[in-house]
Amino acid sequence: MIPENIQRFIQAFSRLPSIGPRQATRLAFKLIAGGPARVAALSQALAGLAQVKTCARCFFVHTNAGATCSLCTDTHRASDIFMILEKETDLISIERTGKYAGRYLVLGELTKSGVLEDIHKLRLAVLKKNIEELPTQKAREIIVALNPSTYGDLHTSLITKKLSSYAEHITRLGRGIPTGGEIEFADEDTLGHSLERRI
Amino acid sequence: MIPENIQRFIQAFSRLPSIGPRQATRLAFKLIAGGPARVAALSQALAGLAQVKTCARCFFVHTNAGATCSLCTDTHRASDIFMILEKETDLISIERTGKYAGRYLVLGELTKSGVLEDIHKLRLAVLKKNIEELPTQKAREIIVALNPSTYGDLHTSLITKKLSSYAEHITRLGRGIPTGGEIEFADEDTLGHSLERRI
Repeated sequence: MIPENIQRFIQAFSRLPSIGPRQATRLAFKLIAGGPARVAALSQALAGLAQVKTCARCFFVHTNAGATCSLCTDTHRASDIFMILEKETDLISIERTGKYAGRYLVLGELTKSGVLEDIHKLRLAVLKKNIEELPTQKAREIIVALNPSTYGDLHTSLITKKLSSYAEHITRLGRGIPTGGEIEFADEDTLGHSLERRI
Repeated sequence: MIPENIQRFIQAFSRLPSIGPRQATRLAFKLIAGGPARVAALSQALAGLAQVKTCARCFFVHTNAGATCSLCTDTHRASDIFMILEKETDLISIERTGKYAGRYLVLGELTKSGVLEDIHKLRLAVLKKNIEELPTQKAREIIVALNPSTYGDLHTSLITKKLSSYAEHITRLGRGIPTGGEIEFADEDTLGHSLERRI
């Protein structure tokens, strides 16, 4: 009863993260209602992602001719300060603050297994190599910017241990009450941090 | 900082219903991580939707050579019983019960304005024409199968009024406690219906 083209769409798209079969089905009918021109435009926008490459140094995305992204080749950025992040979207959020001008390492999504997987170890090895190529052979600072959760903290200490000899300082993001947050609803840990690190 | 191809994808996909800019961004990075072959396959699955047509009689989707879907041309289905539905997905749910073998009319999504829009009026006009072409010039039954909400009930009575002379009976879907539901948590209206229409 459901045309094969729609079934194929549902099958392909319901395998994507955060899109289930129900959303994919609804999406299919919305797209069809939008007309073939809009469908073609979306299909092209999607196909364009195939051209996106991953930076060989920091593993962020880019479409440069070479192997590295513009963040890694920008001479206005400090080349001996590194921030380790879990996801590309975390990097985008940090860039939006306009308050960081060093290099990055996108580690890849961490699981709740509490151990670093092969992909993370490989990327950390690339970071070590990049640091060894510095004139000082040591980073001025490495900021381990993982989510402040139980697992994030666990991974942070794992990474800190691995990199201890590669940086003068290894830091984390500051903790406290978020702007717009309410003291009444802040958890004890957050409130404790905001007291210890009061400004 | 974000490659243009990704920006184009985010812009295009965040306009889709139930996908916001955040989900579109996360999706872009997931897709890129999945590799260009998977991106191409998804893009093709999406492009395939451009071939899907809308039935000239019931407005369900089809990929037949003609203008009508297989549900409208199936001679094993009663041609003088019609079910009016809001969405294609509602039709699919009804078909899955295997308990209905009449024709359909997909009305299109209803708004909360409480009035029928041009698209709904046009489709109802097509239904009237189809009924007038019957040998009896009258439907044996029209089932108005809209969601049992305040607005669904309002639209149902609007449609019932419009079609009163076109059918011997105009019915709605039965109401009561859903299978697996609990009496304790059923709302008064549902429980009231289940008492009035006890089986």
